[in-house]
Amino acid sequence: MFVLGIDPGLARTGYGLVGWEGGRTRAAAAGVLRTSTSASVPERLAELHHDILGLIREYLPSAMAIETLFVNRNVQTSTGVGQAGGVVLLAAAQQDVPVYDYTPSQVKIAVTGYGRAPKDQVSRMVARLLDLDSQPFDAADALAVALCHLQTAGIRAAVKETR
Amino acid sequence: MFVLGIDPGLARTGYGLVGWEGGRTRAAAAGVLRTSTSASVPERLAELHHDILGLIREYLPSAMAIETLFVNRNVQTSTGVGQAGGVVLLAAAQQDVPVYDYTPSQVKIAVTGYGRAPKDQVSRMVARLLDLDSQPFDAADALAVALCHLQTAGIRAAVKETR
Repeated sequence: MFVLGIDPGLARTGYGLVGWEGGRTRAAAAGVLRTSTSASVPERLAELHHDILGLIREYLPSAMAIETLFVNRNVQTSTGVGQAGGVVLLAAAQQDVPVYDYTPSQVKIAVTGYGRAPKDQVSRMVARLLDLDSQPFDAADALAVALCHLQTAGIRAAVKETR
Repeated sequence: MFVLGIDPGLARTGYGLVGWEGGRTRAAAAGVLRTSTSASVPERLAELHHDILGLIREYLPSAMAIETLFVNRNVQTSTGVGQAGGVVLLAAAQQDVPVYDYTPSQVKIAVTGYGRAPKDQVSRMVARLLDLDSQPFDAADALAVALCHLQTAGIRAAVKETR
């Protein structure tokens, strides 16, 4: 069973599926969902919602992990993150996937041991912990929050959890 | 044909359906959609999404009008408004209803002639323009943005618009 980590955004949403296999954490998939910059905001949200439902149906994650949405200084970015987060959480509810959220500093502590670690340190540690090549930041952040949930919930509990 | 005005929020979402009948604007329905405070955020977003789809299917609005989401000083409120706005816009896209957004000051100017009018003045003018009893603020705000769209798009264009 997998934990689906999500780093939501209107233009780019990172995702990462992390499971427990052979005594260690393993990434089953990771990437970035992009929406057409030429489409309207409602259309872009519909694309994102469709893609998240697709990931849930394909991997049947036992949980979704997401960073607590926090309001950025950039109003435009915050609005898009909030709207994107809304349709991601909706998709989880529609497929009965429980959602767990973690603050950015909880995620950084889980992965690097330091709550104010810079993005590239998070990305390097995610690659090391999961034995992956380096990932785009959005995908690395999504993998990081999934790892954070596995650590916090306890790996056994997380993988045994049923949908 | 109606314009569906929406004032989104996680706990309370105002809605108002305004049409053009007998040479004047008329409210076909208005109210507040509430979500269960005991439910999780994803569940509340699913309730709201379901209710908005229900309104669209019942009234077949030719357009949705919504206030441009702006970031409130209250982080908790802004996050909920962004998430709620996301699922509202998604519902519009899923039902092919075009969405038009207006800034708070455009809405206030359309209804009261003054861009910084207080909430109770907006509410009183909405009641007067639509010959309604006074409405809860969320419903009045939703009716106001629908009226703003009718004025801005031109009443004829708005009611002729096809889905």
